[in-house]
Amino acid sequence: MNIENYINQIVRDAKSASRRIATASTALKNTALDYIAEGINSSADFILTENKKDVLAAKQAGLSEAMIDRLSLTDKRINAMADGVRQIIHLADPVGEIIHGHTRPNGLQIKKIRTPIGVIVIIYESRPNVTADAAALCLKAGNAVILRGGKEAIHSNIALYKILTAALEKAGLDKNGIQLVEITEREAIDYLLTSDKYVDVVIPRGGEALIRTVVEKSTIPVIKHYKGVCHTYVDEFADLKIAEEVCFNAKVQRPATCNAMETMLVHENIAPVFLPKIAKRLVDSGVQLLGCKKTCTFLDTIKPATDEDYHNEYLDMVLNIKVVDSIDDAISHITKYGSGHSEAIITTNYSNALQFTGEVDAAAVYVNASTRFTDGYEFGMGAEIGISTDKLHARGPMGLAELTSYKFVVFGNGQLRE
Amino acid sequence: MNIENYINQIVRDAKSASRRIATASTALKNTALDYIAEGINSSADFILTENKKDVLAAKQAGLSEAMIDRLSLTDKRINAMADGVRQIIHLADPVGEIIHGHTRPNGLQIKKIRTPIGVIVIIYESRPNVTADAAALCLKAGNAVILRGGKEAIHSNIALYKILTAALEKAGLDKNGIQLVEITEREAIDYLLTSDKYVDVVIPRGGEALIRTVVEKSTIPVIKHYKGVCHTYVDEFADLKIAEEVCFNAKVQRPATCNAMETMLVHENIAPVFLPKIAKRLVDSGVQLLGCKKTCTFLDTIKPATDEDYHNEYLDMVLNIKVVDSIDDAISHITKYGSGHSEAIITTNYSNALQFTGEVDAAAVYVNASTRFTDGYEFGMGAEIGISTDKLHARGPMGLAELTSYKFVVFGNGQLRE
Repeated sequence: MNIENYINQIVRDAKSASRRIATASTALKNTALDYIAEGINSSADFILTENKKDVLAAKQAGLSEAMIDRLSLTDKRINAMADGVRQIIHLADPVGEIIHGHTRPNGLQIKKIRTPIGVIVIIYESRPNVTADAAALCLKAGNAVILRGGKEAIHSNIALYKILTAALEKAGLDKNGIQLVEITEREAIDYLLTSDKYVDVVIPRGGEALIRTVVEKSTIPVIKHYKGVCHTYVDEFADLKIAEEVCFNAKVQRPATCNAMETMLVHENIAPVFLPKIAKRLVDSGVQLLGCKKTCTFLDTIKPATDEDYHNEYLDMVLNIKVVDSIDDAISHITKYGSGHSEAIITTNYSNALQFTGEVDAAAVYVNASTRFTDGYEFGMGAEIGISTDKLHARGPMGLAELTSYKFVVFGNGQLRE
Repeated sequence: MNIENYINQIVRDAKSASRRIATASTALKNTALDYIAEGINSSADFILTENKKDVLAAKQAGLSEAMIDRLSLTDKRINAMADGVRQIIHLADPVGEIIHGHTRPNGLQIKKIRTPIGVIVIIYESRPNVTADAAALCLKAGNAVILRGGKEAIHSNIALYKILTAALEKAGLDKNGIQLVEITEREAIDYLLTSDKYVDVVIPRGGEALIRTVVEKSTIPVIKHYKGVCHTYVDEFADLKIAEEVCFNAKVQRPATCNAMETMLVHENIAPVFLPKIAKRLVDSGVQLLGCKKTCTFLDTIKPATDEDYHNEYLDMVLNIKVVDSIDDAISHITKYGSGHSEAIITTNYSNALQFTGEVDAAAVYVNASTRFTDGYEFGMGAEIGISTDKLHARGPMGLAELTSYKFVVFGNGQLRE
């Protein structure tokens, strides 16, 4: 098979299917989603059989335990996948919302109306649950989607893909509205990323290297987040009980996520009281601590942090600690090392709360709460397709509304430009 | 001078300046804008002297009359430039708008607040008025801007740049908030387009070739419009008087603009009555007509249109005419040949108006009005930085709000993720 022709056919078919899906009623889209959920449940055995092939190959290839765990499906995980799709049925359809409208002095009625984006490409690693999840979100927002999952999950993805397209057909929608790239050659990605005539946006999900490659190669707009180097700044006016609980939660509750804290900044005035207490609790929970020189004077058993360490997204039970001499010092550190994801201040001081939320440039800025809340569900958006650290189109958690565009519809009665 | 180092310094300085501008008060930004307008007026002679150098060089290089006209400044044009900046003072400051806010069941108060984007690069051709205009818009929206104008306007741009930075300094803002690339080597653009660590968005303004190059080379998000191939569809249920006036306006009022009509689609039922009348009026005004086979049976003196012609953005007194047999036929033609800019239907039929505005996928879709209205001023947004045919971030006219992003500010009192 010629890979270029193969991808060319996929993107053309997606563009063509996108027109029908864009104008499909909410009821029709929900029917298709219901068939998808039903199909996942009723084909659980088939999905498990296919998934076993992937898991076996991954073990033979010597992939890490963590990778194999992400790849592996169980009855419980398959049920959760179907339930995730059912939750999307209950979310409000964003398409058709009149975002804004006004009448001009010449009588033109201008309405800004929410529309689907069109064709979305999702490039992701070997997590089969993303296949169902991303397809369902794109469908609900009226988009056609092209899925390109990691090659380690190819059998699982093809199994899910059969269920997805069967559901579209059963609902009377064009099955090309959801397509999977069924070949694993990397070249396929290159052709996808330059199909700007047919594809409207690319959303890569995965490690920083994958995302950088996508950004460099793509002639299509990309929405992305590189990494989450999140900070919590414990101000001199912090409620130390809140500070301890929030910092502990931000680091320990689920360290492998992009909104987990990687560096804790502590004002020097409260460091002598606060640091020993929080450090003990973190260390007791298995967190490895790295600290600046001043931190090391308070906690003599910890390792010194290097400049490089402050750039790290550990995604693990490791934490940098730095003592700062002012809120400005804290904000400067965040400006230099932060990734624009989620940043928090713990304070009881009104001015400092305002200064921090005003000056810190990140997708989400918190006062007295855990950075772990940066998440579509937690923000009340329902499901999310990902989190953007870009400043364009969408920033922060991206739900259904972020999978849409808009158009201006203008009603006149013969107005002419003068 | 090492070009890479030169650009590197510019983008770093811009990033650094952007922080102060992002939090500058509306009053301060307006003061700077006022100084810019004042500076343009009081330095008119200096600007004219520098502009003459560009115009002379352009004539010696044998540039077209149209190019030289766009490049040339006069007292009147300099006044218009200053007035344009003054108008931006009167526009509402978009920064700080609370776009949306809600309180979660756990008590977290989540506010979505409008913020500047950060650092914007504008790449444009040899129109010195863009220099003042783009700088003023970016400044008002709280962004730092890096300007890269066409090399033919370099003296004019440097003259304006001196006025712009002097105004920033006089107002007490970092002069690096507005920077001009003062070297004309194309290599400078390559370095700009890969400075993704410092630049948040690139807005190219100019011909399709320039824009394609920017899209291919850039690792920074680009907002663009390639071209405007705009249609007006005269439905079988059209009010023919409105149809005639609107089509004439859309083609003739200013044919060199991206929102002018390039192809007129006419329903076959009204073609025998409508076509001869509108054709005569267009031809009498100097419009050259190209037509499909059916059109040629009604208008025997016109040239046949090729498939290629339907893709053309003439920007000139040339018009394609095509007779269609249904509204579906019209929408199919627009789907195939349209550039997603501005499309109009002329009809008195309610269902057809709904179908057309629902199914046509373009930034602006009109019923009974001229496509020439797609413009920031005409839409009531005030000044515009350009028109986007992208579906991400901004679609259609881009005013101040489209030069902003947002962040989520979350107020809590110790909430933890469970």
